[in-house]
Order: sequence, then C-alpha cells, then structure tokens
Amino acid sequence: MEPSDLAGMALIAAAGPEEALAFIRAGVSSSPVLEVEMTSLLSEAGTARWPGLADALGRWRPRLPSLAPERDMGVMERLGGGLLIPEDPQWPPALDDLQLNAPIALWMRGQLPRIPEQRRCIALVGSRDSTSYGANVTGELASSLVQRGFTVVSGGAYGIDANAHRGALAAAAGGGASPSTLAVMAGGLDRFYPPGNEGLLRAIAEQGALVAEVPPGTNPTRYRFLQRNRLIAALCEVTVVVEARWRSGALNTAHHAEGLSRSVGAVPGSVYSANSAGCHRLLREGAAVCVTDAAEIAELAGSAGNNLAQEPDAATALHDGLGVEDLLLLDALPLRSATSAEKLSVVAGLGMATVLAGLGRLELMGLARRATNGWQRGAV
Amino acid sequence: MEPSDLAGMALIAAAGPEEALAFIRAGVSSSPVLEVEMTSLLSEAGTARWPGLADALGRWRPRLPSLAPERDMGVMERLGGGLLIPEDPQWPPALDDLQLNAPIALWMRGQLPRIPEQRRCIALVGSRDSTSYGANVTGELASSLVQRGFTVVSGGAYGIDANAHRGALAAAAGGGASPSTLAVMAGGLDRFYPPGNEGLLRAIAEQGALVAEVPPGTNPTRYRFLQRNRLIAALCEVTVVVEARWRSGALNTAHHAEGLSRSVGAVPGSVYSANSAGCHRLLREGAAVCVTDAAEIAELAGSAGNNLAQEPDAATALHDGLGVEDLLLLDALPLRSATSAEKLSVVAGLGMATVLAGLGRLELMGLARRATNGWQRGAV
Repeated sequence: MEPSDLAGMALIAAAGPEEALAFIRAGVSSSPVLEVEMTSLLSEAGTARWPGLADALGRWRPRLPSLAPERDMGVMERLGGGLLIPEDPQWPPALDDLQLNAPIALWMRGQLPRIPEQRRCIALVGSRDSTSYGANVTGELASSLVQRGFTVVSGGAYGIDANAHRGALAAAAGGGASPSTLAVMAGGLDRFYPPGNEGLLRAIAEQGALVAEVPPGTNPTRYRFLQRNRLIAALCEVTVVVEARWRSGALNTAHHAEGLSRSVGAVPGSVYSANSAGCHRLLREGAAVCVTDAAEIAELAGSAGNNLAQEPDAATALHDGLGVEDLLLLDALPLRSATSAEKLSVVAGLGMATVLAGLGRLELMGLARRATNGWQRGAV
Repeated sequence: MEPSDLAGMALIAAAGPEEALAFIRAGVSSSPVLEVEMTSLLSEAGTARWPGLADALGRWRPRLPSLAPERDMGVMERLGGGLLIPEDPQWPPALDDLQLNAPIALWMRGQLPRIPEQRRCIALVGSRDSTSYGANVTGELASSLVQRGFTVVSGGAYGIDANAHRGALAAAAGGGASPSTLAVMAGGLDRFYPPGNEGLLRAIAEQGALVAEVPPGTNPTRYRFLQRNRLIAALCEVTVVVEARWRSGALNTAHHAEGLSRSVGAVPGSVYSANSAGCHRLLREGAAVCVTDAAEIAELAGSAGNNLAQEPDAATALHDGLGVEDLLLLDALPLRSATSAEKLSVVAGLGMATVLAGLGRLELMGLARRATNGWQRGAV
C-alpha cells in the first residue's frame, strides 16, 4: 500500500501486520468485525467517513502478485542495508507521533548504527533551485550543526537538500566532528535518485545513512515525495527552511513539523529573492521562528532555557549603562571648553545635587574631566 | 523641562499648563496639595516612587532665565511654522496614547495642513549606515506607500530615514501621488540637523512637514533622540524597521510602538548583513511581523480583514487542484507508451473503479489521453 494509506494502517493496527497481509490475501470481500474496529480507529484519527474495507481491498489486491519481500530483503542486504520495523528496539520513537500516519517500516542503508534521537536531528530543507546565498547559508549551517553534535536530515534532492548533506559531510573533512547526515528518500534505496546526486547519495550511504519507507524498486512519485516530507519532519526536533519559493515542497515539510508540534525555523533573505518568499511567508504567518545561524537553531532544539544562543558581542558603548540623568549630564558636557556645574544644571535640566553626584560618577568612568575652570567631556 | 519629564507632566496634569509655569516661577519650595495629586498621577502611570516636588523644582528653575517663548514663536512664524498644543482641534489624538509621556506641545513647520491621521501614517526607520539593499528597499516601500495614500514618517537622519523621506518625495515626481512625508526631529526646527541632510530636510519642509516637541534653538542630544522615537511610534499605525544592527535606535522605536500596541514590521535581509541583524532579532523575538513589500505593510495598517495583501501569482501547476487519488493516478500514467487500466490500478495502488473515474477526470483536464492500446499522459 502507499505511504499514509490510513485504511491500511487501521487494518494493521486492528489485526496486526501479519494477519493484515493474510486477510488481504485471503480473498474475502469484507469482515464486519474488522471493519467496525477500523472505523473506530479511523474516527479517532479524525477520519469520520471512509469508503469501507471492500473499497480498500480493491486497491490493495491488484498489487499482491508483484509483492516479493524476500527479493527486497536480499537486494537491501547486498547493499549493506536492511529493514527496521516498529517492533525493533531501534525503531525511532519519534515516528510514533505520526500515529496512524506512521510508516509501516523503514528501509535503511548506510553507516549510521541507528537513526539518531529526535533531539539530535535537525532538518535543513528547501528549494531544488537554490541560489548561491541559499547554498552558502545551508552549507555553513550544516557544518556548524554537525560540529555541535547534531545530525543533519534532508531529502537528498538538488539544491538546498544537497547543500545540507554536503555541508554535513564536509564538517568531518574540516576536522573535529564525524559526518552525520541522513537522507530520507521518496523512492527505493536500490538506486540513487535524482541521478545528478548519485555521487552525493553514494557518499551519504558511505558516511551517513539513507532511509525510505518504500521497498527497493519503488519509483519516487509526486505523492511519495509529499509523504516523505512527513518523515523528515517527524524524525527531527527542528525543521529549518533555508530557501523556498512561495509554493514549495519545503513549506509542506514545515507544515508537517508544525502539525507535530515540532519547532520550525526559517532563514530570512532578500525581499527581492523569489527563493526566500516561502521563508518570509512562514515568518509572516507565524509558522516559523527566524533563524540566522546554527546557534539559534540549536536553541530551538534545546529544551526551554538550554542551548541559548549567545547575543552577539555588539560594540557596547561606554555610556550604555548610564541612567537617564547621567546621560543628560554627559550630553550637556562640552567637548573642548569647560563649563560650570551651574551651567550644566541649566543645559542638562538637572538640579545641582544631581549634577554634582553625576559628575562624580562620570569622572570615575573617565567620561567627565575636571579642568581648571570647570568640567568638560573626558578623553574616553 | 526635558521630554518625558514625568514629574513635570504630572504637574501640568494636576495644575494646568499656565498654572504649572506660574508655580515654578513663584519660588516656593513645595506644595503639599500639588505633591499629593502628582504622586497619585505618577503612581497611576506606574512610577511608585519619585524624589518629590522640591527635587523637580531644583532641575526646572535653573532654566527659567533662558525661557523666551515669544522669541521662539517669532522664529517659528518667520519659518512658516507654528506651535500645536493639546487644546488645539488639530492635536493628533494618537499622542494621547502616550498618557503621561505625551509631549507638552508640538512645533511644526512645512506644507502639510495638519498631522495626518494615525491610520494613514507609516514609520519607516532604521540604521544611519544603510546598505544599498536597505536604501533600495526603503525607497521603494516609501514610494509605494505614498502612492497608496499613506504618509511616510521618519526621523530625518542619515541612512534609512533619509531613504524613506526621499522615496516619499519621489513618489510625486513619478506622478499620481502628492508627496507626503513627516520628519520628527530631536532638536529645534530652526536649523536642519544633521547638516548633510540639509537639502533633504529643506525639501521636506517645502513639500511635507517637520515636527519636534522641543522649541527652536534646542540641541538634539542623545536623550532627545531616544525620546523622539516615542513620538514616531505614537503617530504611526505601523512602525517598520527596514535595516537595523543588533543594537540600534530603530529597535528602540519598534519597542515604543510595541508598548503602545501599534503594529511593528521588520524587513528581512541577508543573514550575513550586520545591518539586518536587528530586524531578524525583532522577528525572532516575536516583536515584529515579517514584511517584504508595501502591500504587506498596508495590510498591517488595515483593520482586521482590510487591505489584505494579495498572494503572489505563483505559477500554479495544472495538478495543484487534484485530489490524492487523481495525483497517484497521474504519477502512474506513463509519458510515452500506453498502459491498461488494470496496470494503472497496480502501479497507482488504486481500485479499478477509482482508476476509471480518475481517468475520466484527468482526460477532461487534458492530463490523461486515450491511446489505441490504453492510457498515457496527456500533452498538457
């Protein structure tokens, strides 16, 4: 069955996976008991009406003759991969948040011993036609996130996805971190798609991991691309859209993440760049938080109060800590000539006692200086 | 007294403006009755403790000898300007939202018959060291806002402020709109400050208006610049920060606007631009809405549901409106060869009835085509 076939997932939930397959194979036209239970499960999942079990069997059965699970397992084993099922201890609990939309199983291929914990996974996603700005930002974010111990998750596509995986792989070349990147694919893992990313996907298989919910031999279709996005969103603590047009599949991933109460970040860009319009749309609609560097993304991935991004060391002027009265006094102090405390009182609009106390404080900070004939601005 | 001298504003509120001046001139050291009333007014405004009337008199009285209201009025009249007081019918009601922080009076100079209504005023503010990006965005936003009938308000400073005023003045040169821009100054209106903007400020005086709460002859000090920002925020329905560093006076204006429950917009930019860091900070902290063009700013200025920005005409693919099943079917239709409905049922994972109904719909849209030996993708 296709990913997110809700009736199918309800059948598996009601009967168990092996019994579900046996039932579909059995050739009966329906089962009132199963149908009642499935209707109840679908209703809990928000699907009030569904066409019924007979209709679902009508779409599942035509595919039975082409099922070849042993062949699929053999193919994946030869590629150094395998199958992960919900009963495995390594099954990522993050996927349970998808409830009835969870994948039946995950095919995996690569070097990562297991799918990293959700709180260590960050998705970097975006348009296939990235600009050089998007490519730079993505590469830097990915490297920096891997150096902070995160796994960079993306979809293995052209553009931002490819930049994300490359940046993650490059972090190791720069030293310090082991490459950690995961590509969630829309088609079977026996071939590298899109063809132009073959070298990259091979490198991910050799240093990171490829994951898919469909068996080897499955074509990546538009529908499967859209469904794949929910897996990226579910596996990651934060989904960051680096560049996206007003309509873009990356926004679909962001909305999946939002629906799962995961954090969503969007990278801002030029208002003249159509490739940032989707990011600005997310920001404007309040669906994403503005993120500009890896530290801010790490902050989104931390539990409240952890991983807080440091404020930049903006040049703090010496007068930043002054109270209002001392600021008024400082503004009134002449730069070159000297003036009396009485005149300062008039110019600053402060009483004499305030002026004298303030001059003392400013003198200590080097902002005021006592001259022979009065007071002037300090040399600081 | 300086702008936002809360004790002074409380005195004026308690005694009335003329009596307040008479009391300060009178030379008495205090007034228990006035002090009780002022304490109550200050407490309402959130100032629980204040040093008392004697302390305030100590800072007001030294300035009495330099008061010369008739001279100030004469100067402004020669410049074609005048004084606006809260008792005037033209007093902008928007300033009342400042409560005890409202200005005592406004000096005005220029061609605008009055300060436009709050709902027609948009502040465009930002750093003095704008980039070419910020300059372009600001100029375009200002022109476009004036063409939509808004008045562009800013602070007459270098950088973004100057770009905003220039863009507003240029809208008229382009035809269609009368220039409408207001510069709120930190110093007296008898001279143009900063000197490098003299030509621009003169043009604003000739085609728009200059406004200040301090009398002619008053220097623009750091304190007065900060206070000036609250007037910009109060006069405008929306305050938009186009470019600002991490620490910037423009953020101060944005926070004033936020405090007054006015809308705040921030223009995104490159994550590599230090001049956009303040805008991104506002977005990240949820203090501003992301705005990328004049339509989105106008939407912020409209009452809910008005002035809605149109969604861009993004290329809508023909398959955008398809349901999930028809999308699965479309993906399964071969591009070159033809295939049977039975094979489509297997490939798409759909029952035969769904396939046949879907093929009919796709054929009507030109997305599927009947060939001699089956079905294939349409030529669309």
